Amino acid sequence: MEQQPHPLPETETTEQDPSRNSQVQVLAQETRKLFEAGEDTAALAFFRQIHPADQGEILVGLARESRQELLTRLTPDEVAQILDHIEPVEALRLFEGVEAPVVSQILDEASPDVAADILKDLPLDQSWEILGGMRDTEEVVPLLQHPDDTAGGVMIPDYPVVRESISAGNALDELRFLSPDAEDISSIFVVDDENKLVGTLSVTRLALARPHVMVGDIAHREFIAVRTDTDQEESARLMEHYNLNQLPVVDQEGHLRGVILAEDMVDVVEEEATEDMYRMAGVAGERVFGPLKNSLRNRVPWLYMNLATAFLAALVISFFESTIAQVAALAVFLPVVAGQGGIGGTQTVTIIVRSMALGEVPATVGVRLLVRELTLGLINGTLLGVIVGVIASAWKGNPFLGVVLGVAMMGNMLIAAMAGAGVPLLLRRLHLDPAVSSAVFVTTFTDVFGFLLFLGLAAAFINFLL
Amino acid sequence: MEQQPHPLPETETTEQDPSRNSQVQVLAQETRKLFEAGEDTAALAFFRQIHPADQGEILVGLARESRQELLTRLTPDEVAQILDHIEPVEALRLFEGVEAPVVSQILDEASPDVAADILKDLPLDQSWEILGGMRDTEEVVPLLQHPDDTAGGVMIPDYPVVRESISAGNALDELRFLSPDAEDISSIFVVDDENKLVGTLSVTRLALARPHVMVGDIAHREFIAVRTDTDQEESARLMEHYNLNQLPVVDQEGHLRGVILAEDMVDVVEEEATEDMYRMAGVAGERVFGPLKNSLRNRVPWLYMNLATAFLAALVISFFESTIAQVAALAVFLPVVAGQGGIGGTQTVTIIVRSMALGEVPATVGVRLLVRELTLGLINGTLLGVIVGVIASAWKGNPFLGVVLGVAMMGNMLIAAMAGAGVPLLLRRLHLDPAVSSAVFVTTFTDVFGFLLFLGLAAAFINFLL
Repeated sequence: MEQQPHPLPETETTEQDPSRNSQVQVLAQETRKLFEAGEDTAALAFFRQIHPADQGEILVGLARESRQELLTRLTPDEVAQILDHIEPVEALRLFEGVEAPVVSQILDEASPDVAADILKDLPLDQSWEILGGMRDTEEVVPLLQHPDDTAGGVMIPDYPVVRESISAGNALDELRFLSPDAEDISSIFVVDDENKLVGTLSVTRLALARPHVMVGDIAHREFIAVRTDTDQEESARLMEHYNLNQLPVVDQEGHLRGVILAEDMVDVVEEEATEDMYRMAGVAGERVFGPLKNSLRNRVPWLYMNLATAFLAALVISFFESTIAQVAALAVFLPVVAGQGGIGGTQTVTIIVRSMALGEVPATVGVRLLVRELTLGLINGTLLGVIVGVIASAWKGNPFLGVVLGVAMMGNMLIAAMAGAGVPLLLRRLHLDPAVSSAVFVTTFTDVFGFLLFLGLAAAFINFLL
Repeated sequence: MEQQPHPLPETETTEQDPSRNSQVQVLAQETRKLFEAGEDTAALAFFRQIHPADQGEILVGLARESRQELLTRLTPDEVAQILDHIEPVEALRLFEGVEAPVVSQILDEASPDVAADILKDLPLDQSWEILGGMRDTEEVVPLLQHPDDTAGGVMIPDYPVVRESISAGNALDELRFLSPDAEDISSIFVVDDENKLVGTLSVTRLALARPHVMVGDIAHREFIAVRTDTDQEESARLMEHYNLNQLPVVDQEGHLRGVILAEDMVDVVEEEATEDMYRMAGVAGERVFGPLKNSLRNRVPWLYMNLATAFLAALVISFFESTIAQVAALAVFLPVVAGQGGIGGTQTVTIIVRSMALGEVPATVGVRLLVRELTLGLINGTLLGVIVGVIASAWKGNPFLGVVLGVAMMGNMLIAAMAGAGVPLLLRRLHLDPAVSSAVFVTTFTDVFGFLLFLGLAAAFINFLL
């Protein structure tokens, strides 16, 4: 890679990300050092050699003053290139303290989808002010109407397109006028006179065609498209299923509106997986080094919802306080009942929620899935029940205690399977997101019913336990 | 989409995947019905019109006999196209009961990377037999050496490449001889006379260049490459960071060996996220409708590991049996202490493990992260402690019980933060996968130390609680 004029982080390495990270950090430190030594011009020259993706990472990590200093020295076009590689939320941080007209200039140079994403994330008044100051809003404005998580929100609106009624030679001429950005598009879209999508045409096929052939005659007329309001996750799944590197986006009437690129889908898939994981754990909307206030606000509701359910479990135990006062050993086994039910439920809910997200659980198989999980729960519960029963009998020298605990354990593993599979299936049927059927809901079931079963049996057979 | 001769599932819809799924199911039912009516020829004709990606889904779901009937009737090339769209593990199921020479014929037609993935997943003796029966192994064999989860394992080995020393006109002529598959590649690679990668060249730029210009003069000499042994997750992250739609793969000496396409990375990113989620919940290696035996084998170790830790918590409680015998109300609050610590720990561990997987936690920030989580734990713990203390005091009419519970709650939230952040950081430092620092390990800490704190305080101040 000696040919690279950019000091790109060395990527040809077997080591994991820390290595790439640390090399970006070296570049960042070098930039910072030059700034601190007052050598602003040298700092700028050094910074300009870095790849825009890494420039973004470095800028976001710089002290506010150095960041603003750099931002004012870079051309709008240079900043626009950086925006291509960072998240909208990082862009907002970059623009803190930058005046609206400057932001307008930058967004004029940015690709319309990036500009739209940033404008959508700004407070409405700032968004209007910046949009008002932009020269070229024709392509940005239509994008503002699409929610972030739809095909319309992730598509890029500038794609190479030709009419089916022109010749291959003319089509190639039209390609010449395209911006160099369009160079990495491998095929162009073919539309009819009303801009309705009728096919696709690979650039190679076009380049190799005889010049007088009609585009419509060499176009590939089988294609898969989504509508602007199709969910981004659904779009990603289609691209994955059909192995597509680009997916055209059309409106209700079939007019071509944009294209989704496979490389943008990597982001989407990663985001969606993160969102589901965080939602299940009750930390949705957080970032690991985001503002502390944000983390607090996100976690607190789940902590208090969990508190309510924990008190529900406490209430169940309190019904049996007199039983526990007679046989304090019962208290010893409460975490065993709750713990095993908890992990059993977590295993089931995780695999089901994730499989739903991957589209592997069609609505028709709900009952089959429940039966499958109950079978697993029964097998595991029986084995665990016997083992736990034997241990408890031996430990406390009371076989009846062992039987009570063993039966409760088996019952709780069934409850875990039922809740772990049933809660997400039910949530989906109610058109709610199954990923919120987190640990919290499922462990409530296993705690409450597990304690009820264990202590209820103990109370019923109290004479054998004394 | 009226132009499509394929009965593609209707994709222009706002509904979620169940709708696409159910439409594939309609196609599947139609195929099955024709088979059952004995109209094999009509069934075959109908099946042939379906997109290979959907054919794969349908085949995998068919009864074994119909599947084998269909497979023998399809040409090797038709089956090879289906293999492009299904997972290697599904391909193995497809080949059950199919004779080795037939599989060899099919894999000869498949793309080398697909064939290699399937061969790697077969038992070694079958793999040798099938490979031995293949005509064309030149491209497949080199791929067999790369582990599945490396760049070498996900790259495709056939990519369009030209030498820098030839003219643009000749390069275009060479492109004409490429298979139609290569049509969706947007740029070609430029190598020197030793096949070392020196740059890239977009097809559009090549098509528009004057014919006598040297390829080396119009090639783009800045590029990012990975080595065959680079981790697939690292490769995906690079493509995401630098917004690449293809990533060249070179060997140690810089010779070009293959290319990774962005559309294949969508699979990789999805797989990796699923793996991490499943690992955290102790269900790694499962599929929602995989064999029951497999599910049992995967879940059981975690259930028993959890059992061991639950008994550890039970042991802690047993130390305080006499205290509980005196104040049975203590048992009531055990799930509150354990439950809140558990969710606090789960929140922390989830956000940290996922952020690590996304490359957002460089090794240098470990301490900062721990401090951040401890701060959150302190704030949440203090609030929760006060609330829980007040409720317990009021409920049981004993302010001292409230104080003991409140202090234990605060302490346990700190333990949760420490374990939730500390366990994954420690595992990574030890070069182990942080994702296995699942619920199991973290909740062990919070259960054991939470009970120790709560019951220890209660025992120390037992006179105030009576």
